[in-house]
Amino acid sequence: MGLFTKDIKTFDDLFLHTLQDIYYAENQIVKSLPEMIDNASSAQLKQGLTNHLGETKTHVKRLEQVFQMLGQSARGVDCPAIDGIIEEAEEVTGEVDDKEVLDAAIIAAGQAVEHYEITRYGSLIAWAKRLGRADVAQVLEQTLAEEKMADKKLTSIAESQVNQQAAV
Amino acid sequence: MGLFTKDIKTFDDLFLHTLQDIYYAENQIVKSLPEMIDNASSAQLKQGLTNHLGETKTHVKRLEQVFQMLGQSARGVDCPAIDGIIEEAEEVTGEVDDKEVLDAAIIAAGQAVEHYEITRYGSLIAWAKRLGRADVAQVLEQTLAEEKMADKKLTSIAESQVNQQAAV
Repeated sequence: MGLFTKDIKTFDDLFLHTLQDIYYAENQIVKSLPEMIDNASSAQLKQGLTNHLGETKTHVKRLEQVFQMLGQSARGVDCPAIDGIIEEAEEVTGEVDDKEVLDAAIIAAGQAVEHYEITRYGSLIAWAKRLGRADVAQVLEQTLAEEKMADKKLTSIAESQVNQQAAV
Repeated sequence: MGLFTKDIKTFDDLFLHTLQDIYYAENQIVKSLPEMIDNASSAQLKQGLTNHLGETKTHVKRLEQVFQMLGQSARGVDCPAIDGIIEEAEEVTGEVDDKEVLDAAIIAAGQAVEHYEITRYGSLIAWAKRLGRADVAQVLEQTLAEEKMADKKLTSIAESQVNQQAAV
């Protein structure tokens, strides 16, 4: 994108562009999660993020499967949204010394990432169905369910442990 | 942020920083919505975005009320996340000529914005409660409910009209 103008002509183009966008995003998340895991203090949070790193690698593979189903080669496009979300996460967490406050900031950053993914997969699934590709929608729905679960898990970690300690 | 390092020391600092982040974001959304409204073709979508512009102006006022409740002056901090989300929205919608495909892209962009706000307000409300400020949480909950409703409204517009036309 950006090199050529008006190159999204059809609904298929919009679908493919958004698929490339989330492919780039998932790959950036794989790169950025290890630092978040390193910075986290709570064992529960470290474990939750580590599990999600494994899931995220699966999401990358699933996207490659979808590209294949569409007869396209897997490639990403620049995604200023996820770049901005990750940049902000790094900026904010870099400002915090206190371990419990840092855990709360990491959880919030993780949830911003999850919500970005939830909205993109939501659009992709709706569009896949309209385009008559229920098979593609089904693959993407597995990932969406895991992203929603990861978001809920972060909320539950925050509620059970981290915020309570940080507010003491 | 970024001018000073390690300046989030307490949970209160994290809350205030995130409040400043969403204050900046809401103000950027007020600035960017008119172009999305201009670009939208569907009357239902134009109306939905116009209503949400009015709500967003109320969200700015509510945040100013929260700053006041905390004895702080209302100010924003740079928010690379919302800047990235809006930049991507402008890039993608700028690539589309077809009116129905453009409407679908505008809806997806609007939902990415809504989800960013939903996650930030969700964190703020949880933190306000932990900090013993149920009064602040209550004000923010009104906005969160409206953001969730705006997201649902965009889904319903997409389902009822736009995507169906675009896929023809």
